[in-house]
Amino acid sequence: MENEIWSFIKLVRQKSPLVHNITNYVAMNNSANALLAIGASPVMAHAHSEVDEMVSIADSLVINIGTLDEYWSESMLKAAYRASILGKPWVLDPVGCGATSFRNELLHKLLQFKPSIIRGNGSEIMALAKTNKTITKGVDSTGESEDAVEAARIISRQYQCVVCVSGAKDVVLNDTRTVFLENGHPLMTKVTGLGCSASAVIGAFSGVFEDKLQATTAAMALMGVAGELAEMKAEGPGTLQLHLIDKLYNITKEEFCSRVKISEP
Amino acid sequence: MENEIWSFIKLVRQKSPLVHNITNYVAMNNSANALLAIGASPVMAHAHSEVDEMVSIADSLVINIGTLDEYWSESMLKAAYRASILGKPWVLDPVGCGATSFRNELLHKLLQFKPSIIRGNGSEIMALAKTNKTITKGVDSTGESEDAVEAARIISRQYQCVVCVSGAKDVVLNDTRTVFLENGHPLMTKVTGLGCSASAVIGAFSGVFEDKLQATTAAMALMGVAGELAEMKAEGPGTLQLHLIDKLYNITKEEFCSRVKISEP
Amino acid sequence: MENEIWSFIKLVRQKSPLVHNITNYVAMNNSANALLAIGASPVMAHAHSEVDEMVSIADSLVINIGTLDEYWSESMLKAAYRASILGKPWVLDPVGCGATSFRNELLHKLLQFKPSIIRGNGSEIMALAKTNKTITKGVDSTGESEDAVEAARIISRQYQCVVCVSGAKDVVLNDTRTVFLENGHPLMTKVTGLGCSASAVIGAFSGVFEDKLQATTAAMALMGVAGELAEMKAEGPGTLQLHLIDKLYNITKEEFCSRVKISEP
Repeated sequence: MENEIWSFIKLVRQKSPLVHNITNYVAMNNSANALLAIGASPVMAHAHSEVDEMVSIADSLVINIGTLDEYWSESMLKAAYRASILGKPWVLDPVGCGATSFRNELLHKLLQFKPSIIRGNGSEIMALAKTNKTITKGVDSTGESEDAVEAARIISRQYQCVVCVSGAKDVVLNDTRTVFLENGHPLMTKVTGLGCSASAVIGAFSGVFEDKLQATTAAMALMGVAGELAEMKAEGPGTLQLHLIDKLYNITKEEFCSRVKISEP
Repeated sequence: MENEIWSFIKLVRQKSPLVHNITNYVAMNNSANALLAIGASPVMAHAHSEVDEMVSIADSLVINIGTLDEYWSESMLKAAYRASILGKPWVLDPVGCGATSFRNELLHKLLQFKPSIIRGNGSEIMALAKTNKTITKGVDSTGESEDAVEAARIISRQYQCVVCVSGAKDVVLNDTRTVFLENGHPLMTKVTGLGCSASAVIGAFSGVFEDKLQATTAAMALMGVAGELAEMKAEGPGTLQLHLIDKLYNITKEEFCSRVKISEP
Repeated sequence: MENEIWSFIKLVRQKSPLVHNITNYVAMNNSANALLAIGASPVMAHAHSEVDEMVSIADSLVINIGTLDEYWSESMLKAAYRASILGKPWVLDPVGCGATSFRNELLHKLLQFKPSIIRGNGSEIMALAKTNKTITKGVDSTGESEDAVEAARIISRQYQCVVCVSGAKDVVLNDTRTVFLENGHPLMTKVTGLGCSASAVIGAFSGVFEDKLQATTAAMALMGVAGELAEMKAEGPGTLQLHLIDKLYNITKEEFCSRVKISEP
């Protein structure tokens, strides 16, 4: 498995997929740098006048609602619609789902365009399951737990997509497989936008590989291992952020394969 | 005094206040990272469709007009109004006050919603005093000086708020107390958005403590001491920025208490 | 020549030009930090209600279309028009030219306000030459090559401006001179927004010096040499970005003059 994932990482560098991001202001710089570091080509574009064209030339699309407003919501809907029409893979990052009804309503609409992959933390994924009023039963916790995995399973089944719940232990699942990843470091939660960068990296992998569960697993494994290695050199969240970008760029096969911890029960 | 301020810093970590920021594009990433590093939870939200809800769930609000436009101005007015109605503490950072009439007019309107704390540099605070046409007498210098302190006093009295003038020496005052801080390093002025981060950090402290003068003093002391310590490891403004975030995260009681310089004449 | 350029760098520090940027979200922080590091004063402002005033008080203007939308396009047109009326130097960075018709059309309009300097990579400059339908012949390659230089020459002649094509070898030309620069390092292409920062730095130099070809050459030489020196300390694109800002701030005459490689055939 380690060797297969490593071959994925190498192939992303070779193919250099063009990833179209409609993301939040806070994470734009991080996300672009993470994409460049793994060998992908980032483009950021949200104008109603150009999102259709940009989706057409991109290999994949990433939509992150972190700092949405009415204009940007429309951009996201246009882009998601276009991606679904063209059959392009697209990733949804439901930042802050559950915080306001504006976010919940937009997410409910975006889900209709069937994202290929959804990545969020436990509370976001649980809140997302609730936005569809018919499937809210049994999803009522706020921690990262079995409930989040159950919520992920419900969403995955409903929208036929891969769902990734990131946390101390990451879970990636679709309707037939469930994969657990145990890489990463708690200090990563103290750097803004690393979850957003993870979604961007998933976007790059999903632009290259047909199997979206494998693509998501590989992307999360890379982020997790690079984060662990970066933390060893960091003195706090400031330097962690920089070493993580460095490590996404210069990670070796040995570093990666000796550390990655994936299990599929 | 040092021990009391240190206890404030520890309490912010424990309480982890949710700070709602409507800030500029340049400083969003810095500000979010500074808030995470001190143990607070940042949220950035400006949509007219959600600012009300976001203010309601936040512990405090920070408004920074750095890259304003007509839409964002309206967001800021909505949020400030909501904070004033709900009695939530809010911080105003009048970036570039005096540069254009658009900024001056927005600030004049925002002041009507009585910010809890205003933080700016000397020239911004002096320009701000002038935006209220009835109180402009005697405020006509451009340097950081006695005039800035006088302007701060006028604003503080008029709007019943704490005013912080940051510079080589920081001043924090309300109508009964005036505190001087002598930490920080000149190299900090060469990093974009550190003033904005200071305002965000003040937001976090003001979300936890009733006494806004003490909250502001503690926040500025933390930024100043962390900046001094960061500068010792930095080779320029690029590395200073990262070490500052690290130090906000890992500063020790001894480091803080041995360096903080506060006086109240 | 080295000594003359070094004197330019020193003069920018002394004069501290105010550079008005209407740039993309990804590069705003980098660009502001690069400007501060070289001793300039950055201001970011795009509101229709204030761009005119901001252009009037600035020493130069930089327009970068990286994350444009309909509102920002209008801001850019207003600012470019104002700069042309006031005779202020302005720099155009045609990010992503050729990717969508929205970008091409905006650029076609902006060119009518005669930028002082245009900086882009080879494919952007070639695409830009094509936006003027009357002059597209012979410009049909996609690599960075002789074709890009030829496109630069056509644009320069047509709009009477300096054109800079950045790449492994940078070219700066106007209708009488062509200068080549051979500094920089390939790792710089893995950091987002460094081209945008280069345009901002050109903006600073163009706000101080009459001769825009010399100003552009000096700015690109500084970015290139600082990038080389930063790369020696970097372990990847993350740390490169920070060391570059440090080096823009603390570069010495000896470091600069011993490395700069400029030729004029």
